[in-house]
Amino acid sequence: MNLAEDGRAALDWVVDYLDRVEDFPVLSQVQPGEIRDRLPTEPPADAEPFRNVLRDLDDVLMPGITHWQSPNYFAYFSITGSEPGILAELLIAALNNVGILWRASPALQELEEVTLDWLSQLLGLPRGWHGQLEEAASVSTLIALAAARDVKPGARVVVCSEQTHSAADKACKLLGLEVRRTPSDDEFRLVPDALDLDGACAVVATVGTTSTASVDPVAAIADACERAAVWLHVDAAYAGSAMVCPEFRWAFDGVERADSLVVNTHKWMFTPMGCSALLTRRPEDLRRAFSLVPEFLRTPDEVVSFSEYGPVLGRAFRALKLWAVLRCFGRSGLQARVREAVRLAELFEGWVDAEPGWEVCAPRHFSLVCFRRLGSDEDNERLLQRINAGGEIFMSHTRLNGRFVLRLAVGNARTEERHVRRAWDVIRSSAE
Amino acid sequence: MNLAEDGRAALDWVVDYLDRVEDFPVLSQVQPGEIRDRLPTEPPADAEPFRNVLRDLDDVLMPGITHWQSPNYFAYFSITGSEPGILAELLIAALNNVGILWRASPALQELEEVTLDWLSQLLGLPRGWHGQLEEAASVSTLIALAAARDVKPGARVVVCSEQTHSAADKACKLLGLEVRRTPSDDEFRLVPDALDLDGACAVVATVGTTSTASVDPVAAIADACERAAVWLHVDAAYAGSAMVCPEFRWAFDGVERADSLVVNTHKWMFTPMGCSALLTRRPEDLRRAFSLVPEFLRTPDEVVSFSEYGPVLGRAFRALKLWAVLRCFGRSGLQARVREAVRLAELFEGWVDAEPGWEVCAPRHFSLVCFRRLGSDEDNERLLQRINAGGEIFMSHTRLNGRFVLRLAVGNARTEERHVRRAWDVIRSSAE
Repeated sequence: MNLAEDGRAALDWVVDYLDRVEDFPVLSQVQPGEIRDRLPTEPPADAEPFRNVLRDLDDVLMPGITHWQSPNYFAYFSITGSEPGILAELLIAALNNVGILWRASPALQELEEVTLDWLSQLLGLPRGWHGQLEEAASVSTLIALAAARDVKPGARVVVCSEQTHSAADKACKLLGLEVRRTPSDDEFRLVPDALDLDGACAVVATVGTTSTASVDPVAAIADACERAAVWLHVDAAYAGSAMVCPEFRWAFDGVERADSLVVNTHKWMFTPMGCSALLTRRPEDLRRAFSLVPEFLRTPDEVVSFSEYGPVLGRAFRALKLWAVLRCFGRSGLQARVREAVRLAELFEGWVDAEPGWEVCAPRHFSLVCFRRLGSDEDNERLLQRINAGGEIFMSHTRLNGRFVLRLAVGNARTEERHVRRAWDVIRSSAE
Repeated sequence: MNLAEDGRAALDWVVDYLDRVEDFPVLSQVQPGEIRDRLPTEPPADAEPFRNVLRDLDDVLMPGITHWQSPNYFAYFSITGSEPGILAELLIAALNNVGILWRASPALQELEEVTLDWLSQLLGLPRGWHGQLEEAASVSTLIALAAARDVKPGARVVVCSEQTHSAADKACKLLGLEVRRTPSDDEFRLVPDALDLDGACAVVATVGTTSTASVDPVAAIADACERAAVWLHVDAAYAGSAMVCPEFRWAFDGVERADSLVVNTHKWMFTPMGCSALLTRRPEDLRRAFSLVPEFLRTPDEVVSFSEYGPVLGRAFRALKLWAVLRCFGRSGLQARVREAVRLAELFEGWVDAEPGWEVCAPRHFSLVCFRRLGSDEDNERLLQRINAGGEIFMSHTRLNGRFVLRLAVGNARTEERHVRRAWDVIRSSAE
């Protein structure tokens, strides 16, 4: 194939896609099996031109794509693969570096060190924390809890709240640990006085829970963890990016005392998928949990490789995309976009609050609004189905105190006030 | 930023890089800390243009890059991020899909199903196996061993040979399992008669070990596993791609009876980094080990999501790059490149064999040659350092029966006979 020519076609496709992304039905409207059935059942015998890939992306796959890049995407957490991040992925693939050890790509490892130090500074963390990039928050949390387990042999319990993300359960299942869930208060926050740390090796506190973006009182939890010598892991996968703005730092009070912290830069820091930052002030404990250096990886270099701090040997060059994003947004650019998302969510919250027949169901701290129409769970569930079937916007739900609740998550960098206004129109008209 | 214009610059960079890649010193020649010291210690306050990223990639980072894409790269296992794979990464980043559940991108999930079925067919596996793409072989092996552990409660031992990759040790450490290593025979193969499966939940057999690409006798191991009701996981991370050629299938005899199998398509199937295929005939056991569906992920769709089969919730659109590669190479294209790599390795093996003062140190089955210069370990170690310091080629080493051994791994799609000839010249002249 001709890389220049095919690359031009791929780039044109990307530019055109992002120009038109708001016009697609946000949630794919296909039925299960529909995309599979359109694809050949056998692999090609011989090489096809790359233009066939682009053609079938349009003709076969696009109807099955849910448009996470759309400004009308308000489900789960709204994310953005920004332009510098997208182009960085092209560069990363062209370099195809594998960070199995320092000499396998010194730039990969050292750029990751520097970029994670930049990130630490942007988030207002104490100097000197160790940072590394993982595929997903699930992996970051797994690494942190593995270190916590190995630090305190015999303590087999991880304590968290009923609002903690299921990633903690998955990690504990793998690690052979038991999860002890503590009730939350009426604002969906972990109650420090209710913490039972007997036999615990770790507590997972969350700043910005998945259901409501509620904020656990990290400082009080840190007090309890310090008294009991228990590892404190803070899950700020979504909300952590808001730490770039001083006015949101109240929510992160005590995070500086955590043993480990996860912030997904692919969530609200405009980096394409697969860029979860794990930050820790106890890197040696991670290293003890994961370091295994077989003969084939021994070199004369006196450098500790990142592969000694986690389960994966072949590290991707994720740092390059985060570095590109941080440079092309800058601190002020990150702050402006976080503030705008929060402003839009606040605006939406105000509309819901002022509208008879609707209620806000949880305090709004960041860019997520939980709300419902007064009426039965079934009514709200059907309402959500109608909203999503229309294709104009995509939203998701949660359950709070047993009730079915709608979630509107702002966060895509392309979302403007007009999109949020239109969402509210769609929601209200779907309710009629 | 202007995506079309900056994208053009990034694409030009990529085309130019791959045109010139063989001219760079393969192994980066920087000292530890050198790249870090060239980077600003603080993040930028304000947005910078994307061209600054490209400029600093050239001026600051490139000296710290080890060129995995170079045809002169013969270390570890030689890999290729091919052109269709590179362009697919651009598309993946632009779509920025996250496969947390089926509806979050039906095309992501169903293309992965179909592409992994294609892969199964190309590898000659029985029909109906379940396949999924993970970041790395370490993750694929972790998933397989977690399923094996949960299938056989109380059995806490994983049996493998002394040649098995350290990923098995890492997975076992996480899972709370014990590793029992069995001695290998004089061709570095696991000895089925020496297998002690008492208390074992799994055996890891390898086709194409990391040190020598030796081939464990999978069929005999499968016999033993079946008798003892023990899970058989086959690590064919490197050599698995050779199954596309019927003439290499002898090495995979018995793989069709494995419970799980890992083949890294980013190793010898021309797919950019982060594309490890986990194939299994026991998907329900994976699901039992990993399925946790919290409320926020419940939907009316009657589809099982891929996130129920592994530790990661937010799945990347890896299938798109493997699909692009399989289409743009086709079965015949994959076969031709695998055969050529094996031919080049065989050629090299013949030169070593014929040259006085040198010896081949392990049987060569695929595209890896293990050899040494007659003399002390120190001599060979210094020889390797001289070879790599020259920058013309990059090789790595292993230890066999306690001796320091050089490895020449062919596999990069850009490697031609002239590169291997030149490598032999460099090696011999470095020895003088």
